[in-house]
Amino acid sequence: MVHRNPDIAKLAGSYLFPEIHRRKLAFLQANPTAKLISLGIGDTSLPIPPASIQGFVEASQQLGDAATYTGYGAEKGHAILRERIAHKLFNGLVNADEVYVSDGAKCDLGRLQILFGRGVTIALQDPAYPVYVDSAVLGGITGGYSRTIAGYEGIRYLPCTPNNGFFPTLTDSSKADLLYFCSPNNPTGAVATREQLKSLVAYAKKHRSIIVFDSAYAPYIQDKTLPRSIYEIEGAREVAIEIGSFSKLAGFTGVRLGWTVIPQELTFDDGSSVKTDWDRVTTTIFNGASNIAQAGGAALLTDEGLAQVAEMINYYNSNARILKEAVLKAGWEAFGGDHAPYLWVRIPQMTSWQAFEWLLNDKHLLTTPGVGFGPSGEGFIRMSALGKRSDVLEAEFRIQNSE
Amino acid sequence: MVHRNPDIAKLAGSYLFPEIHRRKLAFLQANPTAKLISLGIGDTSLPIPPASIQGFVEASQQLGDAATYTGYGAEKGHAILRERIAHKLFNGLVNADEVYVSDGAKCDLGRLQILFGRGVTIALQDPAYPVYVDSAVLGGITGGYSRTIAGYEGIRYLPCTPNNGFFPTLTDSSKADLLYFCSPNNPTGAVATREQLKSLVAYAKKHRSIIVFDSAYAPYIQDKTLPRSIYEIEGAREVAIEIGSFSKLAGFTGVRLGWTVIPQELTFDDGSSVKTDWDRVTTTIFNGASNIAQAGGAALLTDEGLAQVAEMINYYNSNARILKEAVLKAGWEAFGGDHAPYLWVRIPQMTSWQAFEWLLNDKHLLTTPGVGFGPSGEGFIRMSALGKRSDVLEAEFRIQNSE
Repeated sequence: MVHRNPDIAKLAGSYLFPEIHRRKLAFLQANPTAKLISLGIGDTSLPIPPASIQGFVEASQQLGDAATYTGYGAEKGHAILRERIAHKLFNGLVNADEVYVSDGAKCDLGRLQILFGRGVTIALQDPAYPVYVDSAVLGGITGGYSRTIAGYEGIRYLPCTPNNGFFPTLTDSSKADLLYFCSPNNPTGAVATREQLKSLVAYAKKHRSIIVFDSAYAPYIQDKTLPRSIYEIEGAREVAIEIGSFSKLAGFTGVRLGWTVIPQELTFDDGSSVKTDWDRVTTTIFNGASNIAQAGGAALLTDEGLAQVAEMINYYNSNARILKEAVLKAGWEAFGGDHAPYLWVRIPQMTSWQAFEWLLNDKHLLTTPGVGFGPSGEGFIRMSALGKRSDVLEAEFRIQNSE
Repeated sequence: MVHRNPDIAKLAGSYLFPEIHRRKLAFLQANPTAKLISLGIGDTSLPIPPASIQGFVEASQQLGDAATYTGYGAEKGHAILRERIAHKLFNGLVNADEVYVSDGAKCDLGRLQILFGRGVTIALQDPAYPVYVDSAVLGGITGGYSRTIAGYEGIRYLPCTPNNGFFPTLTDSSKADLLYFCSPNNPTGAVATREQLKSLVAYAKKHRSIIVFDSAYAPYIQDKTLPRSIYEIEGAREVAIEIGSFSKLAGFTGVRLGWTVIPQELTFDDGSSVKTDWDRVTTTIFNGASNIAQAGGAALLTDEGLAQVAEMINYYNSNARILKEAVLKAGWEAFGGDHAPYLWVRIPQMTSWQAFEWLLNDKHLLTTPGVGFGPSGEGFIRMSALGKRSDVLEAEFRIQNSE
């Protein structure tokens, strides 16, 4: 008889989102008329820009016409989309051939585990987007969940707190084969400076690590001196993979479109090409993102589409500003929210779950307990600014009317 | 420094499609004016039915409107699509809750490796769709490629030839944890009878195996007494997963939409639910198929859409009939093609590659050498009937004018 995969059993330790869901349902059952406002999951609320919609519709109509129908596309994506990602989003710092179009960052994080296999160690920012940890557990490269460290054995958690400006203290003992790094950060909203990323690249070179750089929130960077891509740092092409997405760029959360960049220069210790192996993984267990989604992505990466994106980003950044001011006026601590759609909030004298419960029961605001993103998240909650303005203004009102 | 994943290195043995591509390019370079007709890769050529196109367009327009925009959907898919798959395609033999919408069978075959982990053995029909083998190699459950067996160590290849009517001889020594089975078969075009599938289910029960049943070509079955789903067999819900797709059902090869069914009754040896673990895998490293693709899929599974599907299937089945008659008239052997868009052809006195080269150079027909699908494919070539009628008629002419 077939044995259960022991790596999946380990995941029982990650209970964050089911637990939030359980408490939300319990609240709604007890308060059926409450108007709950969600600042929880980072889902987008604005419609997708018109340029992309037109791209979707045209591609759909072409699929219905014998003269223009196309079937399987290249697993790595349409050439025009890869060209535009390379030129419009990376300013030519990467080549179109190094861009692999995906159905979203989360899916490629899973495939990256298959690329690297079971022989690697990983380190990551703590707190971090839970998929880095959970996909590593599924990939079988961790031990079990430990209540003592509030995390998995074998993963190197690099604390990111107000004390170190949310940039990890990189020591020889924290080295690992893969170094997951997210900037602007989910959940803290922190953005790494050019100097910080230089030190990260130098560290990876010294220890011969590969950085998995998640730039899903790069479009939210307002200050043009802050780096939007790891490839703005000299030498990064030899040590870094970068993952991005249309989800937070243009509201494609349900449409599913992203990319992963694997530079030519990136090699394993035997000198063989990481990119060649990624070609093999993606052609074997992936068949490309939906051609309709790709057409909408390509249409977005035009002057017209990018102007529409700028408006959308501006709206969410304004949401974040409104929320941050309200939080600070309430006498709480707030981080992030300047170049990211997330605020990282600490309410005095409360644990993450206490703050979550208090905001839920007293303010009818749904947030995400910071401790769910890693042990160093304790004491914080994450607020998402990706909601509608009317909800954000109502949340502002409720926060400001705190005792 | 990071070591290369040894499992990916093993895949070097699978050289079929790159080799076909290399020979095709060499031919085109030598014969730049030749009108090459592809009966090779199983890609669709007819436009997608109007019902789905309307579904795509409406969903796209909804994403562009603030009143109807939606972001992340459930990882397992839209409820209406799951309901329709359960009722329109499975006649209620499965519940909507057991249907998991995917971005295609190939992608779910990769995720199934992650579900089962490294502790399982596999057996499969030989020849078979190469993704079963290649995803198992990537999943690290095989040994290296062996030229002697023309396959991977550790995989149990179950020969399917004209001698056994393309149904494997199931013995105690061929047992394995996972049993991949495809009917109608890619590449042989063979369809398993009800009695054969009964024996397969009984065998899986006896050896406590799980059947991974690939029914991607089920819509091509003409004879209503032949089973279209493994769940038509009593007891199959306790031993089988079934994978299907909109690709060959309605030309969604580039749109990316499929499904996997995991019945409630399916358990591991500890009594725990396979479905619960699949929930965990898909929520961790997948984020749902594109919402636009799902809307087109749901629109197809209506009376209007299914009538359009029937026309399309009829067209491809007629292609297969034309090709099969031509092949038989030429004095070659032909199998399949009655309930599947593939013909499995044997030209006297030729190996697979000899037949491939002869058809390419003398007839300007591109096919797929059978040996690329497994050792028992030697001597055969696969012809796809998914092309345009005009190409099929031209292929018929060229085949009939064989010496």
